[in-house]
Amino acid sequence: MVLLMKKKKKGAVPVYLNVYDLTPMNGYAYSLLARPWGLPFWRAREPGPEDVVFKVLYCGMDHTDLHQMRNEIHSTNYPLVPGHEVVGEVVELGSDVKKFRVKDIVGVGDIVGSCGECLSCKSNEEQYCNNRIVTYNGTYKDGRPTQGGFSSAMVVHHKFVVRIPEKLALEQAAPLLCAGVTAYSPLKQFKGSNKALKAGILGLGGVGHLDAFLVSSNTAEMEQAASSLDYILDTVPAVHPLQSYLPLLNVDGKLILVGAPKPLQFDPVDIILGKKTISGSFIGSMEETREILEFWALKGLTSMVEVVKMDYSNQAFERMERNDVRYRFVLDVAGSNLE
Amino acid sequence: MVLLMKKKKKGAVPVYLNVYDLTPMNGYAYSLLARPWGLPFWRAREPGPEDVVFKVLYCGMDHTDLHQMRNEIHSTNYPLVPGHEVVGEVVELGSDVKKFRVKDIVGVGDIVGSCGECLSCKSNEEQYCNNRIVTYNGTYKDGRPTQGGFSSAMVVHHKFVVRIPEKLALEQAAPLLCAGVTAYSPLKQFKGSNKALKAGILGLGGVGHLDAFLVSSNTAEMEQAASSLDYILDTVPAVHPLQSYLPLLNVDGKLILVGAPKPLQFDPVDIILGKKTISGSFIGSMEETREILEFWALKGLTSMVEVVKMDYSNQAFERMERNDVRYRFVLDVAGSNLE
Repeated sequence: MVLLMKKKKKGAVPVYLNVYDLTPMNGYAYSLLARPWGLPFWRAREPGPEDVVFKVLYCGMDHTDLHQMRNEIHSTNYPLVPGHEVVGEVVELGSDVKKFRVKDIVGVGDIVGSCGECLSCKSNEEQYCNNRIVTYNGTYKDGRPTQGGFSSAMVVHHKFVVRIPEKLALEQAAPLLCAGVTAYSPLKQFKGSNKALKAGILGLGGVGHLDAFLVSSNTAEMEQAASSLDYILDTVPAVHPLQSYLPLLNVDGKLILVGAPKPLQFDPVDIILGKKTISGSFIGSMEETREILEFWALKGLTSMVEVVKMDYSNQAFERMERNDVRYRFVLDVAGSNLE
Repeated sequence: MVLLMKKKKKGAVPVYLNVYDLTPMNGYAYSLLARPWGLPFWRAREPGPEDVVFKVLYCGMDHTDLHQMRNEIHSTNYPLVPGHEVVGEVVELGSDVKKFRVKDIVGVGDIVGSCGECLSCKSNEEQYCNNRIVTYNGTYKDGRPTQGGFSSAMVVHHKFVVRIPEKLALEQAAPLLCAGVTAYSPLKQFKGSNKALKAGILGLGGVGHLDAFLVSSNTAEMEQAASSLDYILDTVPAVHPLQSYLPLLNVDGKLILVGAPKPLQFDPVDIILGKKTISGSFIGSMEETREILEFWALKGLTSMVEVVKMDYSNQAFERMERNDVRYRFVLDVAGSNLE
């Protein structure tokens, strides 16, 4: 497997990536085939004065990548370079970028652009901008497809790049850039509550990996827990029965969905009697990404990750699919000796 | 059809009601048959020192009555006396009841009891008390079934009785006691918002009857209205496709369900992208009931109602079922010459 980054001249950095051949088959199937001859190549856009160019060091792997690779939300354009929890080292900066320096360790999450003009952008919630540009399988302002962090390098507008705190191990930082901030963002609404909150987390691994409580699959325990929780963070990336979980919520309780990709069913009575809420939350803002990184560094927190090399990515996705990972894969891109 | 109220002696008021014969047939069917000989009789409980006894004057009719009469939520005990928007005139007061006088015009809504001890009760949200007692088809503290307002008289604890403001026409007051407060209660959360809110109402008639905006069934209009609403009050008492309505909400928008009786489906993406909320709200508190009555009287508001006599109730329910009412039936109980 070959991953190339060839710097041809200053101000124009063609970045060549190994692109997995993700041929969609039979509607939902796909082939995840790393071509040993490293073709086709991908050429990154030329960096502008507001861009940051960085060499990718680590990149988290999660179910979103799998959904996208399989075209499960029917919007995948092939070839596709997944990866949206990217940690890297700055190699070049546009002339207008003042907040970073070469060799800084930086991160990029789910989005690499937004309009900058709408109410969401003006409120520092650019993740809800209708014109947000996703890190891969999106379309950049120049009309070209965006490609993600399973690659040797990236070119990203500085607004969508965060600094990784020094105290944070790089493989720890990666999952915070999507999974971490996705769990953190919806919980900010409970800030300032003057009572101790009881929470449940649905889904272990992925986003749920980064929080502290668990909902049991034991029926007796579930019954005993009825009306006991203030909120449930629901990270399950598959169809699941909400009627099993809504009764766990107390009056005013909230079930917050961050990951479900397919239609879900619920019984309205379960939310009407108790003024309960099913809400959604989408990743987090750049500001919130900085906050969760600082928080993790400040508290010295760690999460369990399994670091793998690029040549293990096919097996890693297969294991992720059968929940055979404790609890997160992180790709050691730079350590994969791909250049 | 005979409706009797026989006062035998002070402090013990046996109230005899005509009870509709609501035999459940074939699972979901029912026969709504008013027996002309007025049998079986129903004897109300003896009033205690904290009770209010009142003669029923008007009573609203709505879909909840229909659901209950048909045993659609599988909890109906027959015989059943529906009616939970009851306006009446006080005929007797328990010795401890100081806030009412004989001849006062009063109202009773969906509940006639609660524990008084839990957090919901202590927060004046007794409608969410797990031990609330519903106005009919419930079990009172004495173990006997509760029966509703399609009857000559009722005995209700004073805490669950409200005064009807003098300026309010009685047939106008009735629908406010459930439908009105059900629409009002969830909207209180928007009080104090410093921007003009744009709202949609799903479901005309019933609860939706008592609010001001409508969602169109015209596809082009719906598309034009995408991301335009701050909230949707969803009063539809039947299965309906939330995926048609959630896109109408703006970022942070809320769809508030107050009436749906059966499981509903939604696409999580519709709430995740936009931090939207599907929430439930159950009727309203006694305090909110007083507020909506005062508000209606103060503003001189009226809603369109069709007043019918008791002997028209079968036809009225049949017409309600095919949405052939503009927009609410109110039973003129006292004017039905049933005594």
